[in-house]
Amino acid sequence: MSSTLGTLFKITTFGESHGMGVGVIVDGCPSGMALTEADIQPQLSRRRPGQSDLSTPRQEADQVIIYSGTEFGRTLGTPIMLLVHNKDQQPRDYGEMSRVPRPSHADYTYQMKYGIRASSGGGRASARETIGRVAAGAIAEKWLRATYGIEIVAWVSAVGDIEAQPLDVTRITRTEVDNHQVRCPDPAAAARMEALIGEVLAAKDSVGGILTCVCRQVPIGWGEPVFDKLEARLAQAMLSLPATKGFEIGSGFAGTRMRGSRHNDLFVFQEGRLGTATNFSGGIQGGISNGEPIVFRVAFKPVATIGQDQETVDFIGDPVTLAAKGRHDPCVAPRAVPIVEAMAALVLADMALRQSARQQVGS
Amino acid sequence: MSSTLGTLFKITTFGESHGMGVGVIVDGCPSGMALTEADIQPQLSRRRPGQSDLSTPRQEADQVIIYSGTEFGRTLGTPIMLLVHNKDQQPRDYGEMSRVPRPSHADYTYQMKYGIRASSGGGRASARETIGRVAAGAIAEKWLRATYGIEIVAWVSAVGDIEAQPLDVTRITRTEVDNHQVRCPDPAAAARMEALIGEVLAAKDSVGGILTCVCRQVPIGWGEPVFDKLEARLAQAMLSLPATKGFEIGSGFAGTRMRGSRHNDLFVFQEGRLGTATNFSGGIQGGISNGEPIVFRVAFKPVATIGQDQETVDFIGDPVTLAAKGRHDPCVAPRAVPIVEAMAALVLADMALRQSARQQVGS
Amino acid sequence: MSSTLGTLFKITTFGESHGMGVGVIVDGCPSGMALTEADIQPQLSRRRPGQSDLSTPRQEADQVIIYSGTEFGRTLGTPIMLLVHNKDQQPRDYGEMSRVPRPSHADYTYQMKYGIRASSGGGRASARETIGRVAAGAIAEKWLRATYGIEIVAWVSAVGDIEAQPLDVTRITRTEVDNHQVRCPDPAAAARMEALIGEVLAAKDSVGGILTCVCRQVPIGWGEPVFDKLEARLAQAMLSLPATKGFEIGSGFAGTRMRGSRHNDLFVFQEGRLGTATNFSGGIQGGISNGEPIVFRVAFKPVATIGQDQETVDFIGDPVTLAAKGRHDPCVAPRAVPIVEAMAALVLADMALRQSARQQVGS
Amino acid sequence: MSSTLGTLFKITTFGESHGMGVGVIVDGCPSGMALTEADIQPQLSRRRPGQSDLSTPRQEADQVIIYSGTEFGRTLGTPIMLLVHNKDQQPRDYGEMSRVPRPSHADYTYQMKYGIRASSGGGRASARETIGRVAAGAIAEKWLRATYGIEIVAWVSAVGDIEAQPLDVTRITRTEVDNHQVRCPDPAAAARMEALIGEVLAAKDSVGGILTCVCRQVPIGWGEPVFDKLEARLAQAMLSLPATKGFEIGSGFAGTRMRGSRHNDLFVFQEGRLGTATNFSGGIQGGISNGEPIVFRVAFKPVATIGQDQETVDFIGDPVTLAAKGRHDPCVAPRAVPIVEAMAALVLADMALRQSARQQVGS
Repeated sequence: MSSTLGTLFKITTFGESHGMGVGVIVDGCPSGMALTEADIQPQLSRRRPGQSDLSTPRQEADQVIIYSGTEFGRTLGTPIMLLVHNKDQQPRDYGEMSRVPRPSHADYTYQMKYGIRASSGGGRASARETIGRVAAGAIAEKWLRATYGIEIVAWVSAVGDIEAQPLDVTRITRTEVDNHQVRCPDPAAAARMEALIGEVLAAKDSVGGILTCVCRQVPIGWGEPVFDKLEARLAQAMLSLPATKGFEIGSGFAGTRMRGSRHNDLFVFQEGRLGTATNFSGGIQGGISNGEPIVFRVAFKPVATIGQDQETVDFIGDPVTLAAKGRHDPCVAPRAVPIVEAMAALVLADMALRQSARQQVGS
Repeated sequence: MSSTLGTLFKITTFGESHGMGVGVIVDGCPSGMALTEADIQPQLSRRRPGQSDLSTPRQEADQVIIYSGTEFGRTLGTPIMLLVHNKDQQPRDYGEMSRVPRPSHADYTYQMKYGIRASSGGGRASARETIGRVAAGAIAEKWLRATYGIEIVAWVSAVGDIEAQPLDVTRITRTEVDNHQVRCPDPAAAARMEALIGEVLAAKDSVGGILTCVCRQVPIGWGEPVFDKLEARLAQAMLSLPATKGFEIGSGFAGTRMRGSRHNDLFVFQEGRLGTATNFSGGIQGGISNGEPIVFRVAFKPVATIGQDQETVDFIGDPVTLAAKGRHDPCVAPRAVPIVEAMAALVLADMALRQSARQQVGS
Repeated sequence: MSSTLGTLFKITTFGESHGMGVGVIVDGCPSGMALTEADIQPQLSRRRPGQSDLSTPRQEADQVIIYSGTEFGRTLGTPIMLLVHNKDQQPRDYGEMSRVPRPSHADYTYQMKYGIRASSGGGRASARETIGRVAAGAIAEKWLRATYGIEIVAWVSAVGDIEAQPLDVTRITRTEVDNHQVRCPDPAAAARMEALIGEVLAAKDSVGGILTCVCRQVPIGWGEPVFDKLEARLAQAMLSLPATKGFEIGSGFAGTRMRGSRHNDLFVFQEGRLGTATNFSGGIQGGISNGEPIVFRVAFKPVATIGQDQETVDFIGDPVTLAAKGRHDPCVAPRAVPIVEAMAALVLADMALRQSARQQVGS
Repeated sequence: MSSTLGTLFKITTFGESHGMGVGVIVDGCPSGMALTEADIQPQLSRRRPGQSDLSTPRQEADQVIIYSGTEFGRTLGTPIMLLVHNKDQQPRDYGEMSRVPRPSHADYTYQMKYGIRASSGGGRASARETIGRVAAGAIAEKWLRATYGIEIVAWVSAVGDIEAQPLDVTRITRTEVDNHQVRCPDPAAAARMEALIGEVLAAKDSVGGILTCVCRQVPIGWGEPVFDKLEARLAQAMLSLPATKGFEIGSGFAGTRMRGSRHNDLFVFQEGRLGTATNFSGGIQGGISNGEPIVFRVAFKPVATIGQDQETVDFIGDPVTLAAKGRHDPCVAPRAVPIVEAMAALVLADMALRQSARQQVGS
């Protein structure tokens, strides 16, 4: 496995979905920052299952413990270990499930790669794995906000065929996003998305969606060409999330249909510095932030766990009808909002420190 | 800068567009492999400027030298340094260009990040930087083909609004791709694309495009969850290329509009192993290759260098009309084909070695 | 901080001496290996305080919990998190100690580097930090033994002026080492060492020592020149331990006084392969294991915590007499034995996987 | 191979002893620094063969070329590639040498690890590999001196049994070191060392030596516990050099014979900050620089190439008398001086940037 991300602001996650718990070590967080569980819990609560009619009724409190790295509510500069115990932690031999790889899950590839896999749930391939990321991301985000005033806001911009109206990325807030269960701040679209998710749920099916994320007040100069360009590391971070199938920065795929004369972001002088009249670049040029809002989109597939029977084969190739079990989110997008925000924060915090290294104090 | 990519099959690139030359060190290539310049030159030649009516008439031979790491035509297991001298290597102070950051180029962000930048061309942000990648990728590809029979083929699937018909990813060859200057193997679409590029060129403008790439015969089990999932590292690799704005694996953004009951890739038993009836997963499940063709798409924006005047501001914020200079490719997509193939090969070779490490010889 | 070690067999440690606990994540351990706490506890018990008359009477059970990464007693290939709760975990403001940096401890440098430090004990600079290393090392060692038959044995070869007789590195066992409290297998020297430690303790002082370690049955070919030569990574691993001041491989510093004609290890043919008649190389040539026993030595300084008053200054430079507190080990060497073994195992396991990556299965 | 060193100030070396040349890429050197070949050449010249009666008469000019990363004599912040062409670059099949692994060289282990090796000279195991290190180190050193006033001076403190008198590490200069061919600044010892080397040479033998190195004006706070403690990374760097067998920091192995009451470095207030009355710690406490001079020692074995016949076996185990060829340095220590300085500079530059990252500008 490769469970470590980052060069200077570095996280290492652990834990299986049905083991004792999940968590993360954050190594490299600057010292002296005020930090308690209260800084981390809100994003975990936005992520946890059972928080709305749109998601699985399984209840997990997902209470985080800061196990190391702080004292008297301040970071020591030492590794911060965050722990979230699982409530349901008994691995069971699921019988059919262990005999039949679930379509479009990781059962088959994990079994082939490792020769063994967690008997219950998805093990490390479960969405519970993202808990460590969200917890670590909350720390990164607090530090980015306190040090640079950075704001990160993600929202659901599409569910199935329903797309939200474009909105003002310079102003959108998490409060507006959370006004709707589906976490789409366009009220009309939100209503239609929620209706669609209800239909899909009733049909024992699932549907995909798209998240848009904006990072504001990112200083000019972050990103490390050529292989750690800012958008390259954001792309890696997003595609490392379960169920993601695509990433776009700025104009993205739609930009391929434009002419350069229209797509080029002409410079203008504003607020005492150079800005751009448009932002098709998505806040990044040559792999480096240019001071404009960083805007990207992430595609989430329809979740693979559905309530319908599926005609597939078992591990030895015999045909089998895989019967549905339990209940899962029909659309992962609303709960993915804090996860995408966390990954953005982790990438930015690492880039912040890497750029900071260039600027010697006292030199 | 961050000029090193990979964990075991590792490359480090160097060189500016108007310096002495560009190149790469490949460290970690297995020993004992036959390797001469003839293995590397073809992909460089597919990448070089001036090879067709569709690209800039600037001529660069881009002849590669294997400077270290081989002896008597075999790899020693030591770092392979590849060198391509620039023909035009005199940095010049471009006057206006050094005073005016070109819109949607990296001039502004490099200057702000480093406090200095190459005076001519784009320095490291130039497309010449990809020469090292293509050269290294040719080595990775040769090794993957010899060891695993892997085939990697990319092609232009869209230019502007013109999209190629879907084709059989299990059979498409580089020969078919190269049958058309635009490197789109759909003849009807290719003709329209070439016409469009001609129009755009005449209008002193540029246009974007999309590449599709397939990797065949990739063994089951490659990719390192959770942060180095195979699609995550492919996404990083592609978004680290100049002018890229998006990445999709398998169903991508279109997949978000599907239902799970249709999107799930049901397992079937075929050719003595489990395969899938459909391939919306794009050959990767849970971050690990599943034996199906790996299929992904990369979005390239319209190139920022255009032949039209642009109303922008200089570094100190004064309005200026930036006059066009020289001639550049109106569409980067055709020349990006070997570059995308190279990046795919580099990611796969690294993942191959990382998975190979698990399988102890003699244990 | 930099709390992660290794490229493929990778550990990340966490925890302060007076926090909730300490531990480690092991990422990259091969899957399918039988593993329970019983495989790890013995080395932790050899490391823990209070186990003999020679060490501090502070009692810590140091019971390890496997928190993730295994199921039904087998490794899953996923990150293995190991946790050891601290019994005494209340940070207290030590008054004088927080005002006065202890001589030759890390109080001063941590405060200057991080602007804050753990108020009690040494925080991360405490010897308790090595618990995670020992626990992780036990896993590495089990895997090395099972896969390659590797044996790692360390012992105390000097305490103060007292040196043990040279012994047969091809045969020495842990049982022989543990026959004496001081963990020196030379009975005469052991007795004198124990007497010396007793004297030093009575004098409220401390004394240093030297450990020798042998790794047997290491296959030929491990180690990654040029920067990750096997001895280079062993040196880093050993010098990363608290209280270490030196590292020697093979002939070490004494070898500098020899002539090449005597120092060269002539090749001989034995046991069906090339061996060497002498082993001044210490089992490593050109940074790569040569099949002979790997033999190295590590110097441990006299521990800085002593029972005598010390004339020093406080953080603002005012003279102060630092009164001794508590009781500590007068000589760290005996308890360092499992720690040195653990670090050796961690380095070897990583090198094993890196070399294994070269040998493609089925190629 | 593992040819890359460093986290932020990163070098990657390449080249075989009898190939086209050797060199290095320096990635991460801060931008805007004045840099020409004249900054690099002096240390290369101190390293090159044939510079004194004590070393091999083989002449190599070792002229360095800055191939990329600068423009108009300033660093761009981009990768700096440095190239030194070999004069003698024809690989030849040496006959006997390819059939017989030279004792205590890397011929045998390279052949076993890679299944192939450079036919002439030592390939990557040759001392020529250090050219890239010395060239890169000269850049690191220039930056450290300009930014922090750091001074790094190494010298030969022992050859065989002859030890130099202790000297004042706070004042010793390179000029004093270079006053004697043997690079020992103690005139009496230097004379005896030179005589000894002459004797050894006449006897067609070789002899080892010890280098001491001091780094002055290193700011407090450099080094990254726990695994990248400053002494740990210095130890790795030194043990990655050809022919090294040991590393000591501060009191080293001799310190193990001291009592803690004597060994502890009591704090004193001087020059406006806390210093220490003694420096047995060698300038590093808890893995972090404490502002005192950093002092370490490195053991070099007698070089393995000698002018005497050796009774050994060939690769298939048949006894053979290996006849001596050519002429080599009887003692590597004098030429190792700039190499040790370079490695120290590279480690310090990396640590400087890593610590600098903590101190956000404008925060």
